[in-house]
Amino acid sequence: MPRHARNKVRRVAQRGHYDQETIHAILDAGWIAHVSFADPQGQPFVIPMLYAREEDHLYLHGSIASRLLSTVGSGIETCLCVTLIDGLVLARSHFHHSMNYRSVVAFGKAIAVVDPVEKAAIFARFVDSLIPGRAEESRAADRNELNATALLRFTIEQASAKVRTGGPKDDPSDKDLPIWSGVVPISQRYAEPVPADDVSPGAPIPPSVRRLFA
Amino acid sequence: MPRHARNKVRRVAQRGHYDQETIHAILDAGWIAHVSFADPQGQPFVIPMLYAREEDHLYLHGSIASRLLSTVGSGIETCLCVTLIDGLVLARSHFHHSMNYRSVVAFGKAIAVVDPVEKAAIFARFVDSLIPGRAEESRAADRNELNATALLRFTIEQASAKVRTGGPKDDPSDKDLPIWSGVVPISQRYAEPVPADDVSPGAPIPPSVRRLFA
Repeated sequence: MPRHARNKVRRVAQRGHYDQETIHAILDAGWIAHVSFADPQGQPFVIPMLYAREEDHLYLHGSIASRLLSTVGSGIETCLCVTLIDGLVLARSHFHHSMNYRSVVAFGKAIAVVDPVEKAAIFARFVDSLIPGRAEESRAADRNELNATALLRFTIEQASAKVRTGGPKDDPSDKDLPIWSGVVPISQRYAEPVPADDVSPGAPIPPSVRRLFA
Repeated sequence: MPRHARNKVRRVAQRGHYDQETIHAILDAGWIAHVSFADPQGQPFVIPMLYAREEDHLYLHGSIASRLLSTVGSGIETCLCVTLIDGLVLARSHFHHSMNYRSVVAFGKAIAVVDPVEKAAIFARFVDSLIPGRAEESRAADRNELNATALLRFTIEQASAKVRTGGPKDDPSDKDLPIWSGVVPISQRYAEPVPADDVSPGAPIPPSVRRLFA
């Protein structure tokens, strides 16, 4: 990714990454992007949206009646951010407390995808982004569902990743304070699947879900 | 919270909440807010930031040299969002796949906090927001650290919460399809604390960290 003024990581520059591999890996590990745009009066909005990635496109979707989707889909400047939390960083001083995280900020514009065949394929990709392999286990979108859903293709024009890993950066002068410092790692864990009320008792857990626990 | 045009939950209106208790509970369960604003040309930006809440204020901080902090702190319209992920919702159709989540979108403006005594107290609150009880275990900010850090007080003028819980909303006509549907709950878990390299072997884990595992 080229570095431009708007995507350059300025603070703690050594945490900045611009390579596509790092950026795509973070995007592929997340589910929800925080999508921001401004109205003509400069009022900013940011909303959480599910997304699915394909190359340098991120797909976003919502109700065909959503004003937000139609606003973003009108091709205005859009910025989105995906953040993953990896740990609490406890330092000897308040000042050096931090979090370990991976984030991507991407700039670009979105347009509507209207071809029904293309839309259906991208909806399948959404389902597989939620949980890999799930699309083939479930019923594809029919014509009414396709018509009810607005689908946007956001193209990443510029992006940067910011990653913090490792332990606290205590001041050398604090090293002898009798204060524990270190990291408490955080991860997202799946709990026991809960079948819907109308699923037959004893119905087998599908392969996509079993793989989450493998 | 009063409902205004900019914070009204329009899509799936039954998921919208405007009561302070719901909004504060979500904000208190999160660590990172996605903060958005637009430059004078209408270019939107969204960045992840740690925050600490006090009543209807959210504190944000960063380097005194951060252009972003000074931009947001100039009192321009700002919007921020906190999102917590609670589960994957697997339906019988692609269309009804979803996630369980809790999110807050808040609108307001931020101003700089400059009084050093007030700043130090708020930095302690940041540390306790990361992990309750940690502030008293660690060294408070000194004058140099206070001077190096810009602190903003964002005041929530309007906010709304959006919450999805429960199982998939399958179409009645899909009920007899031989497809499992249900929820895979997701939670953030703490892993074994990792002491910093310069912590003495066998140093006890502090109470704030032990309470995470209690």
